Amino acid sequence: MSEVVNKTTLAKATTGVLASLTTGQKNEALLVMAAALRAEADYIIAANAEDLERGRLNGTPESMLDRLALDTGRIDSIAEGLQQIAVLPDPIGDHLETIERPNGLFIEKVRVPLGVIGIIYEARPNVTVDAAGLCLKTGNAVVLRGGSSALSSNRAIAEVLHRALAGTAVPPDALQLIEDPNRSSVDEMLKLNGLLDVIIPRGGSSLIQNVVLNATVPVIETGAGVCHTYLDASAEPGMAQRISLNAKAQRPSVCNSMETLLVHRDFAATHLLALAEAFRDVRVELRGCPDTTALVPWALPVTPQDFATEYNDYILNVKIVDTLEAALGHIAEFSTKHSECIVTEDAANAARFLQEVDAAAVYHNASTRFTDGFEFGFGAEIGISTQKLHARGPMGLPALTSCKYIIHGSGQIRG
Amino acid sequence: MSEVVNKTTLAKATTGVLASLTTGQKNEALLVMAAALRAEADYIIAANAEDLERGRLNGTPESMLDRLALDTGRIDSIAEGLQQIAVLPDPIGDHLETIERPNGLFIEKVRVPLGVIGIIYEARPNVTVDAAGLCLKTGNAVVLRGGSSALSSNRAIAEVLHRALAGTAVPPDALQLIEDPNRSSVDEMLKLNGLLDVIIPRGGSSLIQNVVLNATVPVIETGAGVCHTYLDASAEPGMAQRISLNAKAQRPSVCNSMETLLVHRDFAATHLLALAEAFRDVRVELRGCPDTTALVPWALPVTPQDFATEYNDYILNVKIVDTLEAALGHIAEFSTKHSECIVTEDAANAARFLQEVDAAAVYHNASTRFTDGFEFGFGAEIGISTQKLHARGPMGLPALTSCKYIIHGSGQIRG
Repeated sequence: MSEVVNKTTLAKATTGVLASLTTGQKNEALLVMAAALRAEADYIIAANAEDLERGRLNGTPESMLDRLALDTGRIDSIAEGLQQIAVLPDPIGDHLETIERPNGLFIEKVRVPLGVIGIIYEARPNVTVDAAGLCLKTGNAVVLRGGSSALSSNRAIAEVLHRALAGTAVPPDALQLIEDPNRSSVDEMLKLNGLLDVIIPRGGSSLIQNVVLNATVPVIETGAGVCHTYLDASAEPGMAQRISLNAKAQRPSVCNSMETLLVHRDFAATHLLALAEAFRDVRVELRGCPDTTALVPWALPVTPQDFATEYNDYILNVKIVDTLEAALGHIAEFSTKHSECIVTEDAANAARFLQEVDAAAVYHNASTRFTDGFEFGFGAEIGISTQKLHARGPMGLPALTSCKYIIHGSGQIRG
Repeated sequence: MSEVVNKTTLAKATTGVLASLTTGQKNEALLVMAAALRAEADYIIAANAEDLERGRLNGTPESMLDRLALDTGRIDSIAEGLQQIAVLPDPIGDHLETIERPNGLFIEKVRVPLGVIGIIYEARPNVTVDAAGLCLKTGNAVVLRGGSSALSSNRAIAEVLHRALAGTAVPPDALQLIEDPNRSSVDEMLKLNGLLDVIIPRGGSSLIQNVVLNATVPVIETGAGVCHTYLDASAEPGMAQRISLNAKAQRPSVCNSMETLLVHRDFAATHLLALAEAFRDVRVELRGCPDTTALVPWALPVTPQDFATEYNDYILNVKIVDTLEAALGHIAEFSTKHSECIVTEDAANAARFLQEVDAAAVYHNASTRFTDGFEFGFGAEIGISTQKLHARGPMGLPALTSCKYIIHGSGQIRG
């Protein structure tokens, strides 16, 4: 039996116990896990040093090493994350619906765990803890497959968490780490129908696309964001500039940042040059349509391929449009259905944009950067779903649950 | 461009219009469709005769020809189904959540259509109309791929519905029928990410497994039911017999019928023989464990493979168990997580069964035959989901919807 089948089978065997744990038992386990991470921080940091050294020998870029690196401060904030999950409301057992039928059947629809969740992610050891915490809080077993460059760190973290869980009501087997660094272990997880109930990929677009295009297990697709902001003719200029700069430059590396700015011709005539200067001041490279480059001499020409690219960088496409319809058409063509914004003082145009744009989050007069579980007040975020099934947009704890119908009868049969 | 890509692209182009239709406009279209089916019944029946003749030449069994056959009575009841969909509440636009954030952002979560739904089904022309009606009511475009043996009927139905829609607010292109009878057209649909938002298979288990194991488009798995009824030691004998007979024999061909009866040893000792005689009276073949065959001489020996089989027929497995735990263990091993029932007068055993069994519907003292959208009071049924993502159990109209976050701001940016 392969490591993947073996460990997923062990995880599945815990689902019955997990589903019947009380909220108090789960929260206690989360707090014990947090304390163990802090107590064994040195052990984890020593393992992390192995990953960092291997990474340096392999010529890994500094920015990636930085995402991989752990110190006591980072471990403390990872532990703090578990404590925050412990105080969130537990969705399991929630009554979603009650139906009384004329024949006397009493039907309850209640929230239950999904079962066994597979998480496939890259070299960020914090995801190991975060995903484990969110899954256990919702009564799910979890099979973690992190990037091989963080393997020593992840192995140490899993060891520490296993030891911690041994003293709690949560069976340690509920948390499994796949250590096989070969791509074949990912491929195996993707086809594990019957053992895995769902797979959630967390990482860059190539990781996500590999999962979406090869999994036969149900997937929750997260991620890619080619987000637009449209400045309408009536946009208030100061607000338009604040929102545009924030959407692009406050943190360009994330999926809810803006990639393309659409500007109504009337607004562009009077305000685009000043806006372009503001972008230049924060070192954002502009790539514009011909009308844009005519107004903004330092803008490079944009290509159709640029409009489809998630830069995750200080680069912005700019396109001047004649009408709201043209903006809607551009968004329909290039949007990844993540987050889209209109800045306008015209209520009718705002209403039309909010209704017609097909995206997880549509904004009027606010930065797309708010598409985030914490900013929405969920207290947690498993990821941002860009698919339409099951969950869409920022996913809080309920996205990790399913439901079940419980039917109370008194001998009813069907006629 | 292939037929599948061409027609799905046409369907997708209608999603903007469909999403903004009023409930009244959609209901009117459903009534016009119903009237057209009745008015053009002769045309549809003539096309259906071609399918039936081809089927007879190919040696199709009478039972399958019967499912394919249309007459004015059947067309009338298909049209009646559309009228029933018209009177159901429209879930689109429902406010699911309202969030006010401390920074003044006002976030609404509203129901929206899924977009374009692909339905892959067998030779039942009623599904063509039913699926089209359910999808259009929920503002979705639909791409239908029915079995080739019903192609003439489906083509005639689609023609009639297209002509009917031309006079309504629903764009006729919202309904597309794939006519290519080759398996390759199904394979193409399964990989149509970006054009199709979801695929729902409706049919037998081989059709469903083909879709689940080959689709990269998200799938809602429906169907297979290896359902159990457990007669506990304290089961009331009359009720136990009524429920068992109903679950097995009222309509054995459907997914919510029982395949295996689990009987506590104490109940079996006093009541199994009488129960077995009642099954014999309605011509149900029994396949029993050794303890069962000792009590019931005419029962055949059951095999492990039998316990995993969905017979859809007048055949029943019977197994005697010593404890509730043994029943739970058998169900955990063989259940397809569809519908499971305990018959007992013991409240603690009932509570444990309802909590621990992992299935879409769990029953205490009622027949599993009630797992059905109409019996649950949904007024419609797209199918019965046996997966845990998105929808589980009988699916009413909300299962054909997604959601969208609409965020109203006044210039908020992220700090």
